[in-house]
Amino acid sequence: MPTGTPLPDDIITPALVLDEARMLRNIHRLAKRAEDLGVTLRPHVKTVKSVVAASRLWEGTPGPITVSTLAEAEAFHAAGYRDILYAVGIAPQKLGKVQALRAAGCDLTVILDSATQARAVAEAGVPALIEIDSDGHRGGLGPDDPALLEVGRILGAASALRGVMTHAGESYTVRGRDAHAEFAEKERAATVGAAEALRAAGLDCPVVSVGSSPTAHAARDLTGVTELRAGVYMFFDLVMAGIDVCTVDDIALSVLATVIGHQPSKGWVLIDAGWMAMSRDRGTAAQAVDQGYGLVCDAEGRVLPDLIVSSANQEHGVITRRPGATGALPDLPVGTQLRILPNHACATAAQHGRYHVLPANGGPAEIWERFGGW
Amino acid sequence: MPTGTPLPDDIITPALVLDEARMLRNIHRLAKRAEDLGVTLRPHVKTVKSVVAASRLWEGTPGPITVSTLAEAEAFHAAGYRDILYAVGIAPQKLGKVQALRAAGCDLTVILDSATQARAVAEAGVPALIEIDSDGHRGGLGPDDPALLEVGRILGAASALRGVMTHAGESYTVRGRDAHAEFAEKERAATVGAAEALRAAGLDCPVVSVGSSPTAHAARDLTGVTELRAGVYMFFDLVMAGIDVCTVDDIALSVLATVIGHQPSKGWVLIDAGWMAMSRDRGTAAQAVDQGYGLVCDAEGRVLPDLIVSSANQEHGVITRRPGATGALPDLPVGTQLRILPNHACATAAQHGRYHVLPANGGPAEIWERFGGW
Repeated sequence: MPTGTPLPDDIITPALVLDEARMLRNIHRLAKRAEDLGVTLRPHVKTVKSVVAASRLWEGTPGPITVSTLAEAEAFHAAGYRDILYAVGIAPQKLGKVQALRAAGCDLTVILDSATQARAVAEAGVPALIEIDSDGHRGGLGPDDPALLEVGRILGAASALRGVMTHAGESYTVRGRDAHAEFAEKERAATVGAAEALRAAGLDCPVVSVGSSPTAHAARDLTGVTELRAGVYMFFDLVMAGIDVCTVDDIALSVLATVIGHQPSKGWVLIDAGWMAMSRDRGTAAQAVDQGYGLVCDAEGRVLPDLIVSSANQEHGVITRRPGATGALPDLPVGTQLRILPNHACATAAQHGRYHVLPANGGPAEIWERFGGW
Repeated sequence: MPTGTPLPDDIITPALVLDEARMLRNIHRLAKRAEDLGVTLRPHVKTVKSVVAASRLWEGTPGPITVSTLAEAEAFHAAGYRDILYAVGIAPQKLGKVQALRAAGCDLTVILDSATQARAVAEAGVPALIEIDSDGHRGGLGPDDPALLEVGRILGAASALRGVMTHAGESYTVRGRDAHAEFAEKERAATVGAAEALRAAGLDCPVVSVGSSPTAHAARDLTGVTELRAGVYMFFDLVMAGIDVCTVDDIALSVLATVIGHQPSKGWVLIDAGWMAMSRDRGTAAQAVDQGYGLVCDAEGRVLPDLIVSSANQEHGVITRRPGATGALPDLPVGTQLRILPNHACATAAQHGRYHVLPANGGPAEIWERFGGW
């Protein structure tokens, strides 16, 4: 079912469109799961980067959040958020800014996985979570790594050890709830094991933090875990749909584009949304269904079967039928407006300075500002 | 030779760094070529998106420019630019904004390749260039397409026909000056042929506009052409170096990043520049040398041989040795700052709100603002 009121006629395309009703549905779904699992939800606001959009997460006082940049921490602290986890390994050079935010009343926690970082953080008096590697995806210490206790002791001696955390980034590479549940259990087992090792060494480890959008939706048991993190779930995208974390109908974000030309002999429809509007993310390229630079919908958000943005230049997209699709290209004259569903909501949203919001109450479209930078 | 003064110690990474001396060298090189070829240079400012950076193109009064968005047209017109070509096929819905800019004194020209667009443009009284397809890359009419004269007559009847233009985007797919010169000749032949066809039909066609960074640097003869366009040449990037339009030493843009971790058993160095800072552009993936998400230099800009950013998440990059490289990973402790050369300067710059400029005069680093959006 298409949702949302029409967008203004004079909107300049490409433009980022947010379907608030879908976003609210996604928010409520995960909030309910966290409640059922008995853990605190700490949403990651790196996807939305908008104080107004994030406000839809809460009824009343803002809760705990995760950020990917200190710019996000500053913006959300200025908007009244207090409990913020900066979930990128801390560079010692950033501790001055972290300390300034903490001095201003922000309970900002950092993450780290080395003794070098731990010494800098301990000296700065900043609380930290130790990053645990649960799936070989990126950073973090293995739960059995001897460095875990060394790092824990450095932090503990300065009362700077707040707990452990992990992110199963590899869960994006597998499909289906069972496969994601296995990664969720890896997250749980690795962090709970690390927390137990720290506690056995006499260290406090109150926080056990896990999460990714796939594992958060699939976890069956989070015994020993205290909090759950996820970000892209508020909007969802084709990558998440491609691994069955959501359906295409759950995707709340799209890019409004206008048809600006045709190459009939090639079966091309040219639109004014290229990679500047969609991002260069090709996250579905490795999935069972490659959606190119995005799946094409009409202006009301109804999917046009088998039409994708198959290539992109800076301000041009080329719409074609999907390889192997049968039937003719629909008639899309110059001036036709379309909405393109993105591969990766974080990347596509980052290309835009604002959302054109279709409000859940059916009222006129609203503008919600986004921010970027570091 | 490394260039530029040190950046401030308290800079928050990732940060976009612009080496002004290299940019000036690139600017002067193409300005000299255009002069030798006897054509007007109309730089494309879609790469720089900065009034201060673009001001280095001119001594005194700003000259003609090309833009990829109406936001660029507005910003540059506000900064005193008058002669602006909007080089993305016009959507009829954008003509109101084009007319408003023209009414404010901006000599803004649009491009198009269909009778539908021509009728809308003629009715709006906006001058246009007809886009010619010289290499099958994207949009445009073939110089022999019967629609060329139809479109020309619609525009001509409203005194809205200003000329023809093309962009050999396919020139990016071939390597070396000879190959690029062939595309330059395709651009010339297609546009001059189209202009002659229009003139033979009694239509005025004063402007014959061609260009891409590869063809602009390789063209041997531009007889019949009046103006040359190019954009990425001001900064250059690894894609341009990979097809021999420049050398790696010509690349004026880099991203300053900080080492935030290691996975020694995997040969990984983690930095705080991921795809949000570098963009998802993988333009060198199809070239002879795949540079991953970027080539790693030390903080002074000296290339560290065979080190690339081989994978990227939103705020994390993973540096490894290039596949097949021998020798050990250099010692890059947590806190080490590095500069990463980008695949595609347009895409990487677009991820940032400002340049941290190393001035050509050797003075302290400056901040130059960039803009984005549509």
